[in-house]
Amino acid sequence: MNFNANSPLVVITEFPVRYAETDAMGVVHHATYLVYFEEGRSQFMREMGSDYAEIEASGFQLPVTEAAVRYVGSLRYGERVQIKCQLKENKSRRLTFNYEVANAAANKILVTGFTTHIWTDIEGKVTRAPLSWQQLYENFISSERKL
Amino acid sequence: MNFNANSPLVVITEFPVRYAETDAMGVVHHATYLVYFEEGRSQFMREMGSDYAEIEASGFQLPVTEAAVRYVGSLRYGERVQIKCQLKENKSRRLTFNYEVANAAANKILVTGFTTHIWTDIEGKVTRAPLSWQQLYENFISSERKL
Amino acid sequence: MNFNANSPLVVITEFPVRYAETDAMGVVHHATYLVYFEEGRSQFMREMGSDYAEIEASGFQLPVTEAAVRYVGSLRYGERVQIKCQLKENKSRRLTFNYEVANAAANKILVTGFTTHIWTDIEGKVTRAPLSWQQLYENFISSERKL
Amino acid sequence: MNFNANSPLVVITEFPVRYAETDAMGVVHHATYLVYFEEGRSQFMREMGSDYAEIEASGFQLPVTEAAVRYVGSLRYGERVQIKCQLKENKSRRLTFNYEVANAAANKILVTGFTTHIWTDIEGKVTRAPLSWQQLYENFISSERKL
Repeated sequence: MNFNANSPLVVITEFPVRYAETDAMGVVHHATYLVYFEEGRSQFMREMGSDYAEIEASGFQLPVTEAAVRYVGSLRYGERVQIKCQLKENKSRRLTFNYEVANAAANKILVTGFTTHIWTDIEGKVTRAPLSWQQLYENFISSERKL
Repeated sequence: MNFNANSPLVVITEFPVRYAETDAMGVVHHATYLVYFEEGRSQFMREMGSDYAEIEASGFQLPVTEAAVRYVGSLRYGERVQIKCQLKENKSRRLTFNYEVANAAANKILVTGFTTHIWTDIEGKVTRAPLSWQQLYENFISSERKL
Repeated sequence: MNFNANSPLVVITEFPVRYAETDAMGVVHHATYLVYFEEGRSQFMREMGSDYAEIEASGFQLPVTEAAVRYVGSLRYGERVQIKCQLKENKSRRLTFNYEVANAAANKILVTGFTTHIWTDIEGKVTRAPLSWQQLYENFISSERKL
Repeated sequence: MNFNANSPLVVITEFPVRYAETDAMGVVHHATYLVYFEEGRSQFMREMGSDYAEIEASGFQLPVTEAAVRYVGSLRYGERVQIKCQLKENKSRRLTFNYEVANAAANKILVTGFTTHIWTDIEGKVTRAPLSWQQLYENFISSERKL
């Protein structure tokens, strides 16, 4: 996982660890990080102007086809989750997002990973990305690069 | 909550506590019991011959309108959950299920509760129970009573 | 459930619905609302100055002894959850919180409920609330009332 | 992922899909498969004679350090999950389990993956596997091979 420092395509999401997310080891359960990744990805899309709820309403879906997670540290209740989400690959039929999860207060990376998605229609048939997505993506890159 | 000892309408479901269900207190998180109740209810319907998946496929839904839970003890990873589920009330538009959750090995009631449901169509409009449900219910009572 | 309009003891928490929280009915799964209540309660305690993580670190716990939920509407992915949490009862050994969950954009109450908690030590033995809690509670009421 | 057909070290676990595990796409949410893997692994350990609850009680933990999942199909409520879990690698400080998840009725692999774990003590310090584990492992292989 390499977050490209020059890429503008990184969105940060923060929220408190939920007690329900912890397990008997006292730390956030490892499956929860896929949900954190999803929250980072949802926020990425909202900031890009392409809410995933609208994508589904317009007849497209983005199911996960692959996911990987590396755990080097842990989060506890009382801490804030910080998720960095980067759109790593934007192909016509496939997306890949990278993630870094840290303790917001400590700026120390605890968990990294990626998810790959394909574009499908509502019946699950693989399709091309909606035109609106590609347009929003171009706008997002351009606007960020002006900064 | 009163489990009627004379009622045949009690179905028992058992499975191991999942590690993911525990929290930092070392015990099963309190919200998980609503999922346990749902598993007990699902098994009840399967044994009655009316799988909830088929109910939805036939155009009906049973959303929860009310739920209540009392916690007197706790479950840990390494223990088996035992759920007793009883159909307490079977009205034309409404169902109520009662639940008792125990540690399967200890036969000690740890959590009790109930859920109330209404029959709706796929659009969420309140409706009467499907005829097939009432028929299966009559059969279920009769067959059990013969025992 | 009666939110007392004159009570200062209401804290509001908002966040987006998570996709993982939805179920095959297309809406937030009913068990998730106990987790939403917990998030509302966590935020209440943080604003009161008494983070629950610190409470546990100091040797006290607040397990749930009773919970009840009424469902009158539903939330979907793409919407924001708004939780109002009120400390309804603050006894020496027991707390009760009330909750109202709404769609943040629509200001329409969808789910209501309460949870009751007892103070215990780390071994689970019932105890009195820590002195620091009662002090923070007094301060919280006073400061709010000045507004 | 290569399940070695000659290896005895495969344990099969089955249970019904839970409604709470589905999402608004109508299928089991992708993060749930890490919980299914955990259930497969828990059952593997129980059949090997080494319940993970006892491992923790004896002062050892097996946190996940890496996980990967490939999704080629999906499960729905009304179907039964079948998890094949194989102990792929049993090093002195590290374990790797492989998983295949299928619809129990259809015998079609839907999701595959692996998890890697390290042995730690209760403080999280990396350690060697407990002697009892290695002994049970030897017994397990021998007894299976006799079949």
